[in-house]
Amino acid sequence: MNESSALRFVTNREAIVEELPWGPHEWLSRPGLVAADQLLLVRVTMPPGKGHSFHRHPLMEEIIYVVEGEAQQWVETEKRTLTVGQIAHIPVNLVHATFNNSEKPLVFLAILSPANAPGPPLVDVSLEEPWASLRQQ
Amino acid sequence: MNESSALRFVTNREAIVEELPWGPHEWLSRPGLVAADQLLLVRVTMPPGKGHSFHRHPLMEEIIYVVEGEAQQWVETEKRTLTVGQIAHIPVNLVHATFNNSEKPLVFLAILSPANAPGPPLVDVSLEEPWASLRQQ
Repeated sequence: MNESSALRFVTNREAIVEELPWGPHEWLSRPGLVAADQLLLVRVTMPPGKGHSFHRHPLMEEIIYVVEGEAQQWVETEKRTLTVGQIAHIPVNLVHATFNNSEKPLVFLAILSPANAPGPPLVDVSLEEPWASLRQQ
Repeated sequence: MNESSALRFVTNREAIVEELPWGPHEWLSRPGLVAADQLLLVRVTMPPGKGHSFHRHPLMEEIIYVVEGEAQQWVETEKRTLTVGQIAHIPVNLVHATFNNSEKPLVFLAILSPANAPGPPLVDVSLEEPWASLRQQ
């Protein structure tokens, strides 16, 4: 994509859909779609019983914003139930996780910055302690 | 605020409310509230007939995400009606504007990055051409 083909407006028709184990991801802002330099935006629809277990983004700051339903949200070892319109703010490299323990779909926005960080975007730590046994406590 | 008092979770109880001519702004992520370095997040409730006229952010990239209602959204001289779940992506320093021409409240998220840009966050160009007469055309 050259810069001139970058979109200024994105609806669900233009969104790039990625199927992940914890539900479909609709990318609304990322390089190759819009002229994103600072901002990634993805809307995740997480079915009941699913979750994106403990992980960290080595070089990106993140916000989770709940659009629909209810999230069990972790930031490090702190847990909250987030409902519509509530957020978690996750500084760079802090471990976090999102689960849907409810009986309805959870829809949330994940906002990440910057958009062009080098290296792996995500490091899974779900099998390491204390994260592996945190939810059972 | 020292770093240790930064919130990880923000609901409407903790949000910082700012009253602006085009409707109340609920800040969910900004320095002094969370440990924001990259991400500003504000939820704007814009009554019918109101608008945030043409302006630019010299050093910040922005996304507008519609949560409720309908926005007349401009990015430079291009106009779209955005409905729930649709976005505008605004590269650094591009002129843009948001109006509520509908009969219902418009609620949208404004996401800006970075969070600590120096200088004026916003430059109003609403009285300059071509912006001043753009909506009348």
